[in-house]
Amino acid sequence: MQPYELSLTAAAAAIRAGRLSPVELVDSVLERVERLEPHLNAYATVTAERARHAARKAADDIAAGRSRGPLRGIPMGLKDLIDVVGVATTASSRVRADHRAQADSTVAARLGAAGAVLVGKTHTHEFAYGLTTPQTRNAWDTGRVAGGSSGGSAVAVASGAATFALGTDTGGSIRVPAALNGVVGLKPTYGLVPRHGVTSLSWSLDHVGPLTRTVEDQALVLAALAGHDPRDPASLDAPAQDYRPGAGEDLTGLRVGVPRNYYFEHVDTEVEAAVRQAVDRLQALGARLVEVEIPMARYIQATQWGLMVPEATAYHERTLRAVPELYQVDVRTLLEAGELMPAGDYLRAQRSRTLMRQEWARVLADVDVIAAPTVPATAAKADQETITWADGTVEAVSDAYVRLSAPANLTGVPSLSVPVGHDTAGLPIGMQLLGRPLGENVLLRVGHAYEQSQPTRVLAPAA
Amino acid sequence: MQPYELSLTAAAAAIRAGRLSPVELVDSVLERVERLEPHLNAYATVTAERARHAARKAADDIAAGRSRGPLRGIPMGLKDLIDVVGVATTASSRVRADHRAQADSTVAARLGAAGAVLVGKTHTHEFAYGLTTPQTRNAWDTGRVAGGSSGGSAVAVASGAATFALGTDTGGSIRVPAALNGVVGLKPTYGLVPRHGVTSLSWSLDHVGPLTRTVEDQALVLAALAGHDPRDPASLDAPAQDYRPGAGEDLTGLRVGVPRNYYFEHVDTEVEAAVRQAVDRLQALGARLVEVEIPMARYIQATQWGLMVPEATAYHERTLRAVPELYQVDVRTLLEAGELMPAGDYLRAQRSRTLMRQEWARVLADVDVIAAPTVPATAAKADQETITWADGTVEAVSDAYVRLSAPANLTGVPSLSVPVGHDTAGLPIGMQLLGRPLGENVLLRVGHAYEQSQPTRVLAPAA
Repeated sequence: MQPYELSLTAAAAAIRAGRLSPVELVDSVLERVERLEPHLNAYATVTAERARHAARKAADDIAAGRSRGPLRGIPMGLKDLIDVVGVATTASSRVRADHRAQADSTVAARLGAAGAVLVGKTHTHEFAYGLTTPQTRNAWDTGRVAGGSSGGSAVAVASGAATFALGTDTGGSIRVPAALNGVVGLKPTYGLVPRHGVTSLSWSLDHVGPLTRTVEDQALVLAALAGHDPRDPASLDAPAQDYRPGAGEDLTGLRVGVPRNYYFEHVDTEVEAAVRQAVDRLQALGARLVEVEIPMARYIQATQWGLMVPEATAYHERTLRAVPELYQVDVRTLLEAGELMPAGDYLRAQRSRTLMRQEWARVLADVDVIAAPTVPATAAKADQETITWADGTVEAVSDAYVRLSAPANLTGVPSLSVPVGHDTAGLPIGMQLLGRPLGENVLLRVGHAYEQSQPTRVLAPAA
Repeated sequence: MQPYELSLTAAAAAIRAGRLSPVELVDSVLERVERLEPHLNAYATVTAERARHAARKAADDIAAGRSRGPLRGIPMGLKDLIDVVGVATTASSRVRADHRAQADSTVAARLGAAGAVLVGKTHTHEFAYGLTTPQTRNAWDTGRVAGGSSGGSAVAVASGAATFALGTDTGGSIRVPAALNGVVGLKPTYGLVPRHGVTSLSWSLDHVGPLTRTVEDQALVLAALAGHDPRDPASLDAPAQDYRPGAGEDLTGLRVGVPRNYYFEHVDTEVEAAVRQAVDRLQALGARLVEVEIPMARYIQATQWGLMVPEATAYHERTLRAVPELYQVDVRTLLEAGELMPAGDYLRAQRSRTLMRQEWARVLADVDVIAAPTVPATAAKADQETITWADGTVEAVSDAYVRLSAPANLTGVPSLSVPVGHDTAGLPIGMQLLGRPLGENVLLRVGHAYEQSQPTRVLAPAA
C-alpha cells in the first residue's frame, strides 16, 4: 500500500509509530497529484514547494518530540474559498484572478497549528454557487460530474490526491460531492466551525466541514476545527467535545428516523435500495427504526432559494456591477436575479426557516438520527442538464442535487454523508445521517458503526 | 398621600405591612382613571370590574397567607399590543376592532401569576408604528404629545392612573414617552423578556419592558418578566438575576461613558444642560467619566429604517391588502413603502447591524454604562410636525424622537431612561443609561443611585 492510500487515521498511526515520515507521505500524495491532475483537475492551485517544506518541518518537529497531534504532517486540500496567507483564493473565478490572501482563515490557522500540510487549493463551483464543479471530473468516471460545489475537495480525497480536505456547504456542497465520489462528508451544526476568512455564499446557510475517507478520520479533523471565534458572528460558544467514535458497533437503544415523505420521493431506485439496505444494517446493529414525517416539506425549496439568492447577491454587489463579464453565465444569472427580489420574499423565507427549525426540533426529540439518501441520483454525465424520473417528471440536475441536502442547511442540524455502495454503473451512493444540533458525536458513532460493518473500501480507480 | 400616588415599592411595602389593602389601592387608581381619562385618554380599554375582582382575590390571598410577592394586588396598565385572554388587543387600530385575545401573552401570564391587577389596556401609536400616540395627551401638558408608541402606558404611570405599566420598544417606544412624561422606562436586553403574545412591529428590534415611577420599581417588575420562553425564537436562556439595586449611592469605580459625538448633536440646550448636570451628579457619586466615540453613527438611521420597514410590512401583509382603509394614513404610508423595498436594502441593514453590534461591544468593554439624552427635546405641541435646530436644520418630530433611542434597539443593549428634571416650560427631561447585554442590574444600580441623590419627585400635575 502506498502512503497516499492511507486513511488519515492510519497515516497518523504510522507517523506516530515512526513507520512513516511526513516527508514520505507528502511526497507520495504530491506524486499522485501530479499524475492525476491532467485527468481530474481537482486543484486550482498546487502548493508543492510549500508542502515539501512543511513536511520537512513536521518531520523535524516529530524528531525533536515537539508534536504528537494526529494531523501533524498530514497532507490536505482546502477548498479555494478558504483563505491561506500568501496564496490566492480564486473561488475558481476570473473575478479573483489577482487575489492573494493577507491572512489565514480561522480554519486554515487551526489546521496549520495542528501541523497539517497544505497540498493545494481545490476547485469549487464558481464562488460555490452551483452543484457540479464543471472544471473537475468525477473520481470514479471522468465523463461524469464531480458534484459540487466542493467538487475538487471530494475528488482529491477520493483519488488519493489529499489525505483529507475541507469544503463548504450552503445547500449540500460538502455532502453532494462526497456522495458522488464515495467519500465521507460532514456539514457540522451551524456555527460550530468558524467561517472567518472563508468566502461567503449565503451567510445564514454557509458551513465549513471536512471531507475524509472514513468516519473515524472526520473526528480527528473536526476536533481541530470546532470552537468559538468571535470574528464569525454566528460562531457558537459550545464546549469542546471528544468526537472520536470509539470501537463498538452496537447501536442498541439508538432510534433511527426513516422519513415516510420527501427523502425517498423522486429518488433513483438503485440509490433508494442501497440506502434502505444501509438502514437495515443499522437495525441489524441494534438500532430501532422509527418512521418520521418531514415537516413543511413543500416549503423547503422556496425557503432555501429565498434565503440564498439575495444573500449571495448582497455579497457580490460591487463586483457584479464592476466586472459582470468575469462571472460564468450560470452564476451571473443567479446573482442578477437576486437584485430583483423584494425584501418581503426574503422575510417570508426567514420566517419559514424559523418555523422549520421549531418543527425539526420536535421531530428530532423523538429520534436520535434521521437516515436518508444524500443525493437522489449518482453522478450525472458531464453534459447532462436534467434528470427524468420514473413518473416522467423532469428535474434540473442542480435542483435534484440540492433537494435532499438543503434541509440541514435551513435547520442548521448536522448531517454526515457516508458511502453505502455503488450502482450497477459502479458509481458511489451516499446516505446522510442527520442529527440534533451539536449532535456530531452521535452521527460519527452511527456512521462509524456502519462503516466497521462493511468490507474495507478502496480508493477511486481514477485514471 | 393617596394610594394612587404611591410608587410600586411603597405600595408593596404598605400592603405587606397590612397598612394598605389591594382593594383600597385598586379603587384609588380606578377613581383616578375615571377622573383623568376625559383629559388624558391613556387607556384603550379600562377593565374596572375585572380589576376590582382581582383586587378582592389578592386581598383574600394575602389574608390567607397565600402570597408574599411584591406585585400582589398592584394595579397595572398593559400596552394594547399585549394579549390578555378575553380582552381585546386593539393595537389602537380599527383593523383590530373585532379582536379578542384567546390566550395570555407570556408577560401577562407572568404578571398575573405574580398577582398584579390589570387596570386596562393602554393606548399605543397605531400598531406601535410611530412616536407620538396622537390619541393620548402628555401628563404634564395636555396640549403636548404623549410620545410613543407606548404613550398610554407612560401617561398612566406619570399621572397615577396605573402604579406601573408595560410598553414595547422597537426604536424608543418605551423610553421616549417615559422621558417626555417624567417616568422611568427600561428597554431590556434583546431577548431577555419574551414577546410571545405581543403584537410585533419589527421582530428583530422589538422589546417588551416596564414603565415605573422609580428605578427601584423597575427591578420588581423586571424580575417577574425576565426568563426563557421557547415560544419567542429570540428569547434568551439567561440565568435569573436579582435586579434590586441595593441601598448604596456610592458609584466609586464605575466608568461612565460620555459620547463625544452623535448623542449631543441637535439636542435642545435645556435638555443637554439637564443631562450633563445629571452626568456630573454621577461623577459626584464616585463614577469616573470617560469620553467615548459612538461607532458607525451615520449608519444608525438607515439601519433602523432598513430593518423596521420591511419587517413591519411583512407582519401586516394580509390586512394591508384586505383592509388598507382601516389604517391611519401615516401608518399605511409606511407599510406600503415597505412593499417596494428590495431584499438587498434589507440585507445591507442586517449586515450593518452586525458590524454595529461588534463595534458597540468594543466601546462597552471600556465603560460600564454610557449616559446620554433619551430624546433630544421635550414634548412637542400636539400639532407640531417639525423641530428646527439652532443651526437652522429642520427635522421631523418623529425622526428626532427615534434618533437617540434607536441604537439600543439595533445593538440589543439595555437602556434605562430616568427623569433628570424639567425645562423652563415645566416639561420633563430624560437621561438614558446604556449598558452591556444582560447588564440591567448595573443600569438599575446607577439609576437608583442617581434617583436617591435627587429630591423626591411628585406625580404629573395632570388635570
